[in-house]
Amino acid sequence: MAGVSVASVSRFINSPDKVRAETRERIRLAMQECNYRYNYVAKVFATQRTQTIGLVIPTITNTVFADSTRGLQDEATRRGYQVLMVNADYDPDAEGELVRHLLERQVDGLVITASDPHGAIAGELATAGIPAVFLYSTLSEGPVSSVGIDNERGGFDATAHLADLGHERIAMLAGSFTSSDRSRHRYDGYRRCLSERGLEFEPGLVVEIPYGLEHCREGVARLMEAAQPPTAIFASNDLMAIGVMGELRAFGLSVPRDVSVVGFDDVLMSSYVAPRLTTIRQPVYEMGRRAAQMVLDALDRGGQSVPRHLILDHELVVRESTASLRRA
Amino acid sequence: MAGVSVASVSRFINSPDKVRAETRERIRLAMQECNYRYNYVAKVFATQRTQTIGLVIPTITNTVFADSTRGLQDEATRRGYQVLMVNADYDPDAEGELVRHLLERQVDGLVITASDPHGAIAGELATAGIPAVFLYSTLSEGPVSSVGIDNERGGFDATAHLADLGHERIAMLAGSFTSSDRSRHRYDGYRRCLSERGLEFEPGLVVEIPYGLEHCREGVARLMEAAQPPTAIFASNDLMAIGVMGELRAFGLSVPRDVSVVGFDDVLMSSYVAPRLTTIRQPVYEMGRRAAQMVLDALDRGGQSVPRHLILDHELVVRESTASLRRA
Repeated sequence: MAGVSVASVSRFINSPDKVRAETRERIRLAMQECNYRYNYVAKVFATQRTQTIGLVIPTITNTVFADSTRGLQDEATRRGYQVLMVNADYDPDAEGELVRHLLERQVDGLVITASDPHGAIAGELATAGIPAVFLYSTLSEGPVSSVGIDNERGGFDATAHLADLGHERIAMLAGSFTSSDRSRHRYDGYRRCLSERGLEFEPGLVVEIPYGLEHCREGVARLMEAAQPPTAIFASNDLMAIGVMGELRAFGLSVPRDVSVVGFDDVLMSSYVAPRLTTIRQPVYEMGRRAAQMVLDALDRGGQSVPRHLILDHELVVRESTASLRRA
Repeated sequence: MAGVSVASVSRFINSPDKVRAETRERIRLAMQECNYRYNYVAKVFATQRTQTIGLVIPTITNTVFADSTRGLQDEATRRGYQVLMVNADYDPDAEGELVRHLLERQVDGLVITASDPHGAIAGELATAGIPAVFLYSTLSEGPVSSVGIDNERGGFDATAHLADLGHERIAMLAGSFTSSDRSRHRYDGYRRCLSERGLEFEPGLVVEIPYGLEHCREGVARLMEAAQPPTAIFASNDLMAIGVMGELRAFGLSVPRDVSVVGFDDVLMSSYVAPRLTTIRQPVYEMGRRAAQMVLDALDRGGQSVPRHLILDHELVVRESTASLRRA
């Protein structure tokens, strides 16, 4: 259609600079005319690069993952990469399957928020043959890189804030530990804080629920219907903390007058709900950006990955959902 | 490693039934031993099917898209398909680019929530050569299938609820019309309702903002600092309605005592915020499921797509954020 040789068309696709301007234009018009679509699969065969990062997130219902994805995507776009997302629904088995699916699709790198970075998934990533990074989890060693905050210290700080306000009966509503090692580490920090402050640990004040707003009702009911209900609740993420506030209201209780609530993440929504939520801020945009950077830097070095474990700073943000016990 | 011929391995991969059990086991163990990974790209070359649906969503910050994705993913999983998600950030140019990216990756079908299904994207999908469905948009005709609700009637119903409560100064805080034809159609319904109820349309009571909680402050300020501020605000989605409630509170105003607020979508969060949000419920899980169904049914018919335009029912859900003008 363009009246040129196959070799010229090939040159146009792979090194357009080497084709004369007039020929380029003829080929371009012909391609437009016949709705030419670049054969990506053939290209992958030839170059062994897809310019794509695969991203496994545990849920798209919690917007904290939207914010880290934003950081990851901005960095990827800036460096000419696309991001393919898949959703594992906090299911460790699904994570492994999705990683294999992405590997089969020849992604150049992987970023994953895994239920347990010490589980089987670590082995899969270590032997995947492409750069991979755990996002949100805190590892101090191992063959797979990671970016996150110190979740144990975050859990400690959330609990210490409540203890500083005079609370002694501090509950934790925790996202299922088997779904998330972050929840487990935040719980470890909660336990350490109680111990350091001389507060007794009561197993009945820790309730583990599946992630999701819809599970908060049962969790709050179990806590508040106890003989001695808590005066403060630490929820292992903001979404659950907002759920807790809604359910406490349904119980006829007022936050923070009757019960103080602390979340974790500092999603944007937390500044808009009433009362505005006290929480632990994670720098999630930056975490996503750094994860992309680690993968892309490794690719720039020809795929050579020196494992790095990056722990960023978190911060307690005090708003309206927590108050001194004396006000109760 | 397995001590068998290349042909036997090939047979094991493509028709394991034709390989003797003992040979199968030897090949399986050898594959495990050498960490064999199926060459997906080569498979695609051979079968021309990737068992994958590409999904383009406008944002992952609004959980309404999480809920429709859930429906789509459940249906896809049930029928042996994977879902690859990409995020267009409400950018019409990005949508076209991401669709081309997914087409290059040989997805078998496409589901997209587009800024404007009458725009350039419609032509791209119509000539893509694979089944494609617009999700959330209401089309009554055209070569590309669609699943959604009647957004114009939804906007009408939201406004009529406020008019029924005696409100006459009803504002609309609208997500940018160029980012979303749904917002435009909801606005059309708002206008029709004002007209049918004999309420005067005041251009100053309609404020268009980019999507995102962070833009609500400016929108609410423009509405509430006017000489005659509105007594009710219809926001074109729940996320913005929650942002509006937060910003009204920052202005020292109480919802619904001073200002009534109606949203659109009925995301789960709307039942947890204080006050609980009055809204228009879209059956988003079902919408996602039906979109997947349309694509997969077309694939089952060998890719033959008869365009269908499916309009599901919406519903006004009255909660605590709206009240009669008399109570003001």
